[in-house]
Amino acid sequence: MSHNTFGHLFRVTTWGESHGPALGCVVDGCPPGIRFKLEDVQRELDRRKPGQSRFVTQRREPDEVKMLSGVLPDGDDGHLVTTGTPISMLIENVDQRSKDYGDIAQQYRPGHADYAYDVKYGVRDYRGGGRSSARETAARVAAGALARLVVPGLKVRGALIAMGDKEITRANWDWDFVESADNPFFTPDPAAVPVFADYLDGIRKNGSSVGALIEIVAEGVPAGLGAPLYAKLDADIAAGLMSINAVKGVEIGDGFATARMTGEENADEMRGGNDGQPRFLANHAGGILGGISTGQPVVARFAVKPTSSILTPRQSVDRTGKEVDVMTKGRHDPCVGIRAVPIGEAMVSCAIADHYLRHRGQTGRI
Amino acid sequence: MSHNTFGHLFRVTTWGESHGPALGCVVDGCPPGIRFKLEDVQRELDRRKPGQSRFVTQRREPDEVKMLSGVLPDGDDGHLVTTGTPISMLIENVDQRSKDYGDIAQQYRPGHADYAYDVKYGVRDYRGGGRSSARETAARVAAGALARLVVPGLKVRGALIAMGDKEITRANWDWDFVESADNPFFTPDPAAVPVFADYLDGIRKNGSSVGALIEIVAEGVPAGLGAPLYAKLDADIAAGLMSINAVKGVEIGDGFATARMTGEENADEMRGGNDGQPRFLANHAGGILGGISTGQPVVARFAVKPTSSILTPRQSVDRTGKEVDVMTKGRHDPCVGIRAVPIGEAMVSCAIADHYLRHRGQTGRI
Amino acid sequence: MSHNTFGHLFRVTTWGESHGPALGCVVDGCPPGIRFKLEDVQRELDRRKPGQSRFVTQRREPDEVKMLSGVLPDGDDGHLVTTGTPISMLIENVDQRSKDYGDIAQQYRPGHADYAYDVKYGVRDYRGGGRSSARETAARVAAGALARLVVPGLKVRGALIAMGDKEITRANWDWDFVESADNPFFTPDPAAVPVFADYLDGIRKNGSSVGALIEIVAEGVPAGLGAPLYAKLDADIAAGLMSINAVKGVEIGDGFATARMTGEENADEMRGGNDGQPRFLANHAGGILGGISTGQPVVARFAVKPTSSILTPRQSVDRTGKEVDVMTKGRHDPCVGIRAVPIGEAMVSCAIADHYLRHRGQTGRI
Amino acid sequence: MSHNTFGHLFRVTTWGESHGPALGCVVDGCPPGIRFKLEDVQRELDRRKPGQSRFVTQRREPDEVKMLSGVLPDGDDGHLVTTGTPISMLIENVDQRSKDYGDIAQQYRPGHADYAYDVKYGVRDYRGGGRSSARETAARVAAGALARLVVPGLKVRGALIAMGDKEITRANWDWDFVESADNPFFTPDPAAVPVFADYLDGIRKNGSSVGALIEIVAEGVPAGLGAPLYAKLDADIAAGLMSINAVKGVEIGDGFATARMTGEENADEMRGGNDGQPRFLANHAGGILGGISTGQPVVARFAVKPTSSILTPRQSVDRTGKEVDVMTKGRHDPCVGIRAVPIGEAMVSCAIADHYLRHRGQTGRI
Repeated sequence: MSHNTFGHLFRVTTWGESHGPALGCVVDGCPPGIRFKLEDVQRELDRRKPGQSRFVTQRREPDEVKMLSGVLPDGDDGHLVTTGTPISMLIENVDQRSKDYGDIAQQYRPGHADYAYDVKYGVRDYRGGGRSSARETAARVAAGALARLVVPGLKVRGALIAMGDKEITRANWDWDFVESADNPFFTPDPAAVPVFADYLDGIRKNGSSVGALIEIVAEGVPAGLGAPLYAKLDADIAAGLMSINAVKGVEIGDGFATARMTGEENADEMRGGNDGQPRFLANHAGGILGGISTGQPVVARFAVKPTSSILTPRQSVDRTGKEVDVMTKGRHDPCVGIRAVPIGEAMVSCAIADHYLRHRGQTGRI
Repeated sequence: MSHNTFGHLFRVTTWGESHGPALGCVVDGCPPGIRFKLEDVQRELDRRKPGQSRFVTQRREPDEVKMLSGVLPDGDDGHLVTTGTPISMLIENVDQRSKDYGDIAQQYRPGHADYAYDVKYGVRDYRGGGRSSARETAARVAAGALARLVVPGLKVRGALIAMGDKEITRANWDWDFVESADNPFFTPDPAAVPVFADYLDGIRKNGSSVGALIEIVAEGVPAGLGAPLYAKLDADIAAGLMSINAVKGVEIGDGFATARMTGEENADEMRGGNDGQPRFLANHAGGILGGISTGQPVVARFAVKPTSSILTPRQSVDRTGKEVDVMTKGRHDPCVGIRAVPIGEAMVSCAIADHYLRHRGQTGRI
Repeated sequence: MSHNTFGHLFRVTTWGESHGPALGCVVDGCPPGIRFKLEDVQRELDRRKPGQSRFVTQRREPDEVKMLSGVLPDGDDGHLVTTGTPISMLIENVDQRSKDYGDIAQQYRPGHADYAYDVKYGVRDYRGGGRSSARETAARVAAGALARLVVPGLKVRGALIAMGDKEITRANWDWDFVESADNPFFTPDPAAVPVFADYLDGIRKNGSSVGALIEIVAEGVPAGLGAPLYAKLDADIAAGLMSINAVKGVEIGDGFATARMTGEENADEMRGGNDGQPRFLANHAGGILGGISTGQPVVARFAVKPTSSILTPRQSVDRTGKEVDVMTKGRHDPCVGIRAVPIGEAMVSCAIADHYLRHRGQTGRI
Repeated sequence: MSHNTFGHLFRVTTWGESHGPALGCVVDGCPPGIRFKLEDVQRELDRRKPGQSRFVTQRREPDEVKMLSGVLPDGDDGHLVTTGTPISMLIENVDQRSKDYGDIAQQYRPGHADYAYDVKYGVRDYRGGGRSSARETAARVAAGALARLVVPGLKVRGALIAMGDKEITRANWDWDFVESADNPFFTPDPAAVPVFADYLDGIRKNGSSVGALIEIVAEGVPAGLGAPLYAKLDADIAAGLMSINAVKGVEIGDGFATARMTGEENADEMRGGNDGQPRFLANHAGGILGGISTGQPVVARFAVKPTSSILTPRQSVDRTGKEVDVMTKGRHDPCVGIRAVPIGEAMVSCAIADHYLRHRGQTGRI
């Protein structure tokens, strides 16, 4: 996709830096006539919001969304309705600390985008990572909240399934627990909470960080979304997830495990179902065959690397090429993968909403 | 991306079905003034061509490329030069067997795109998989051969590193061996050849199939390619690789392994280098930070599932919803991952060429 | 739009040069399930074909279209059906004369694209104008023939309404006459034929050329096509028509005349109609308000400049900057505007088909 | 182009309605390292601002632009520098009058987009025309102010050359006068001011409106911008101008007059020039041949229809189909063409900036 826009008919353009006055997005192409409340969007933003437990960054941002265009009040109870014109959403940055950026402005933090941005643009907003900051993902979540409303019956949920070398037990999977108040990890396994908590407390106290694995499951995806060739649904989901900060791997269905499988193990058999639609006996494919949804749940997983903002000094260079040691103080997520759960849901929701409209456009069969 | 086009400035549109008269692509936006010979393109196609060993499909296709536009003869020695206008390339299908498609036309082969295409379009070219056939990838390889010429000094190579439960030994890695005549697997480990051969002979004789893992390494990628946000280089590589038939997972650099790593392990430290560019002490990032190339080799891996064309009967339904058992005869690759090596190289080459032009366009810094 | 592609959901990519082996297009995103015959496409190409009267170029090209992908036979009577995958169409060049291009290769013909292509690309296919030749428009007409089938009830017709200083009499307008065998001008006014014939014979014998004015009327355009802002239907029609060779002006409805009008004269009043749709009392707007179709006929006009291929020597320079006199021999259209009629119809048809799918995609209201 | 975005590498996405809290745009793809002051953008907005004479709408809007992202302070004197990331600009609506929209909400004003929006979307922001209001053009002007900075040496100017049946005298053309304080019309002919003033006072007092003709001249456009086929520079200029509210016609160079010309009259002859570039002896082509700039000034004209907001009652229908008479009170421009001058400049500037980057991307020849 182009620049800071993703999607084709349901198009999201985001803008903003970590320490600028605000960030936001323009959602263009949203169908008209969708009724919702602003709190439907705010709720998703609140899930991603920093400062909600000791396991995420302590930056205090209310992340309150303002909707500046593309909607009209609909009735007296706070409902809005989309008009079909572009929806501009804005979120103010309120807790960007004023401090001396002298060192960070000149030094390249290893594992961060500092050097890459500088070599690309020759100029860089070094305040809090600038455009490469994870704060930008608030805009994605806002857009994703609208995307969820586009496809009738769509339900997109995510869960953290591994952190460092700790994994959940799949047999314990409980979707309801993911959102429970005493679960700071979006994990579906209640038994994993104390394990993750102990582990991450150790990481956090050492000023270290750790990676994570997230799984997104989209139910209610109509069969027929996606298209040959570069418009494959899985290709767009892969691009969307890989475009999230710190993501280094994406897989669909059985993913990398299929490299070890035989054709007998991998193909999802079918039997007669209801409404003329087949009933699948397995879902190794993750709901997508030939790039097109089959009506089964769409399953994607992605790996989030540990943030490179750590207290241990690391070797690096500065803008002049001088060798320096870099240590990243400040407020950071010890496991950025936690808050990646609602972000991943948002990207999958946007990809599905976009393909829903594209499929309807080309075929008229929805 | 849209429909059957990928790339933004270096744009590739492919067309064609398995059993139609021909397939091909239009490469639009190629820089003018690139000198090459038709055999530079043909050589890449020959690497992907079927029928070259007992381990790939026995369909006999010369895959001879014709270049119909966008180039001029340049001198008397067979050189061509690009003119900057669209380059149309065409490859005839010559070995599409005339046979009775009665069953396949009506039945949905499990694991194939049959049902998905039918539910999407309501009509389907069932002959040899139609548009979802891997024959389409010949067009990608032709486009990739041009993409390689766009970026001065670019070298993109791929290798098969695992097949089923057999893996190479990385210590044996020998790029030269990948292309050697007695290596039917594009594997970089000479010791792996007999292992893969024995294993795949067993698979093949059982009428089964198996998945594989491929690694692509791009050297000579200038720092600065890629951009926030959906134009991240890794996002476009992920989309490109995921759009290849049968691919179910993509990772960059250490990929999924980063989920288990700490920040200390993962960040690539830097020291002073030459020409004002830093020297990296590791490449966990796979040459991409913040979506932008760092000048290190770009490393991507992808998983290819086993083809679902197997002799063991599988449960399925037909177009009317009737339950049937499907057994796929005919000529098939027991491990489609083998020929995916040049295809993966092509997709990575196209993504890099596209971003090279986009970076030059926006910044003028190349 | 990008490069050699136009349209968003109904996407047409054309390729080919005047003197290459062939030209063609890929139509991507065509809805599946459209039944037609190849002769439906050929018929449109025949209307644009050269050599059909003494008033157009004498180059002999059968312009026979081959359809290489994206369709299946449907029944035994020659019908085809679209499958939803890309449709590749190819037209061979058969009458590109082998001759000495020595002069033209080095000289810039005034009014032609020779200098512009050279300064842009540094290399140029000088044979017959290369990519800038009007032969490329055959591909547009082929694509337009499919576009016409996308929108149920759509009828797009065009007519030549002025040539040089000769104009038709609107009171004589007869759509049926436009296609009649004794009308070499696509003019709707039978009385204009002898006037145009005399006039153009004089032009032709002098080795001169002349411009023309064409009007396109699209009936059966559903209300609601087009969208703010750059996706306005009139903006896309303007771009499409302006992209035709030699076109220098485009207007919608009353067009330039509206600059002289008052608000009272210009606004199209409405009264109650049938089916809840208003009945318009005039069509100054040319069927488009706010960039969106109103259900009235869409009316567009465009001006075609005289070709610069004339026998009178003109001052110019060659590639080295040396001053030369250029005289263009060879086979040319004395009034390229004549054959622009089916081309204009094609571009308007493509824009409408694209917006039909886009409107259906976003709103589901068709 | 798609939806509310124009441009390909220099991409502008606008959003906002007449009576919402704000409007704005995101400029994505702007080159990094461009130094400017916020007042460079504000100055352009001030030129388009309402309420500056009795000849334009009396709505009081300061149109003060806020820049929310994509720039950094550069030095202490108020300079900013672009960072290469998206630039979000916001303009608050401050004078949207609170009033009873009862009638307008239900009725379709003839000549306005009311019916078209309603039939398309099924819902409509009727307050001040909603998205179809000319207030949106403020965002275009802001984007255009940045576009002007992208191409070194580019100068884009516009002028009103006709209003109703009054025309300027070209011999009087004085670019400096266009911006003079005692010229409320952006006209280049001092002698035309009293003529236009008298004429428009009459129109205004009658509650009527009138159309206008605007000419845009871009100097300093490098040769080589634009490309076959849909990426022709004139096609993108035509689309950009036609996308402005109330524009019904666009022409390049001699435009519609070329329909009456012969090849001898129309082709611009060349002689040897400086720096190896030819010197053109005329500019009938308006600086564009084959869709590519020649280095001559790019000349475009467009016709703006009279606004349909008039005091004379007009026949129409309401949303229920009931016949009504509509009279549009409120604050309106009696000649919307006047303020279209800076808007037209903005659109031409954006198209040229975009093609400058695209040309550099594909060819590296700038």
